[in-house]
Amino acid sequence: MAPGAGRDEIEALIVQMARLPGLGPRSARRAVLHLLRRREGQMAPLAAALAHVAETARDCPLCGNIAVGVTPGAPCALCTDPARATGEICVVEDVADLWAMERGGAFKGRYHVLGGTLSALDAIGPEELGIPRLLDRVASEQVREVILALNATVEGQTTAHYIAEALEGSGASVTSLAQGVPIGGELDYLDDGTISAALRARRAL
Amino acid sequence: MAPGAGRDEIEALIVQMARLPGLGPRSARRAVLHLLRRREGQMAPLAAALAHVAETARDCPLCGNIAVGVTPGAPCALCTDPARATGEICVVEDVADLWAMERGGAFKGRYHVLGGTLSALDAIGPEELGIPRLLDRVASEQVREVILALNATVEGQTTAHYIAEALEGSGASVTSLAQGVPIGGELDYLDDGTISAALRARRAL
Ligand SMILES: [Zn+2]
Ligand SMILES: [Zn+2]
Repeated sequence: MAPGAGRDEIEALIVQMARLPGLGPRSARRAVLHLLRRREGQMAPLAAALAHVAETARDCPLCGNIAVGVTPGAPCALCTDPARATGEICVVEDVADLWAMERGGAFKGRYHVLGGTLSALDAIGPEELGIPRLLDRVASEQVREVILALNATVEGQTTAHYIAEALEGSGASVTSLAQGVPIGGELDYLDDGTISAALRARRAL
Repeated sequence: MAPGAGRDEIEALIVQMARLPGLGPRSARRAVLHLLRRREGQMAPLAAALAHVAETARDCPLCGNIAVGVTPGAPCALCTDPARATGEICVVEDVADLWAMERGGAFKGRYHVLGGTLSALDAIGPEELGIPRLLDRVASEQVREVILALNATVEGQTTAHYIAEALEGSGASVTSLAQGVPIGGELDYLDDGTISAALRARRAL
C-alpha cells in the first residue's frame, strides 16, 4: 500500500500475530481485520489483558508453573495451597500438561514442570529439566509418590525411565499414568475424562 | 485450578483469544502458552502493537478503509495520495478485499468499501453500504470508471448489478473484474496474480 497509509503498523501487527502457533499469514490477517472492526469492544481489551499477563506472570521457582498474581520470587498458589497434598508430586513435561491435568481435576497434589524431555541432540540434560531440584523436593517435602505424567512418546518415556532410576532409594514410589494414554499420544490432546481414568489406573514402574 | 492461582486471568485471556476467527479454545490455549513462554520478547510487544493500533486506527470517512496514523476525521492516505488517479473508483465489499487489491498492486485509483452486500434478510440496504455516498463521489470527483471488485457470490453480484443500475446516466463507465475470478470465489482467497489478471481483463457491465 502507499507509503504513509498507516498500513505499515497494521502489517507489522499481522506479522506478529502470524508468529502464533496455529495462525499463518492469512489467518493472522483475518484475525487482525476482525479486531480492527471491533477496536473498542475486543481489540483494546485484548491488548490490555495481554499487557497485564505479560507484566504480572511469573515462573514458579518451586514447580515451574506459570502464574499471575503471585509475589515475585514466591511459589505459585498450587505449591502453597494447604488443601493440596504435599506427599505427591506429579511430573509433567510442560505447563500445558499441568493445565490438562488440572482440567481433569483428579489430582490434588503438587507438580513439577520439566520444561521438556531429555535430548542429547539438543543438549538437554537432567540439569536443564530441573531433575536435581525434583530430587531435592522429594527429600525435603517427604514425598511418598512421584507420578510421572509424561507424554507417551519415545522422548517422554526415556525421560520417565531416567527419573525413575534417579529416584531409586529415595523412599518414594514412582508411578506413571497408564490406562487410556494412547501410544504416541500427547497429554494436551486428550479429553479430560481420559486423563482422569489414566490417573486412577496408574501403575508402579 | 485452585482459587487464587492466577489461572482466572490467564483463562480469561484464552477466552478472548478464542474469539478470533481461526482460533478455537484449544489453539487459543496453545497461543497463550506460546506467549507466556515469551513474555518479554513477544507477548508485551504484541500487547503494545494491539493497543497502539486499537487507539489510532480510524475508518476513512471517504472510502471506508481502516488506517492508522491519520488525523481523526481526515481521509486516509489512499484517498489523498496525489500519485493515485482520481478518475477511477474500485468498489470492494470489505477492507480485506481492499488489502487483497493492494497486494495485487495493479490498481492505482481510489477505493470505496461497501462494508457488506445488499441483504433484505439482514436489512442491509443501499444506505448501509454507503451507495448514496458512492454516487456523490462519482459526481463530485469526476469519476470516469467505477470498477466493481465484488465477490463472485450471488450476494456480491446482486449488489454489483444494483450499483451498475444506480450509476446509469452518471457518465461513468461501470466495469467488473472478469477473467480469473472463479464462480463462488472470494477475492481475499485468490493469489495476487489472479487478481491482477482479472483487473486487466475487466469488462463493461
Ligand atoms: Zn508452583
Ligand atoms: Zn480513504
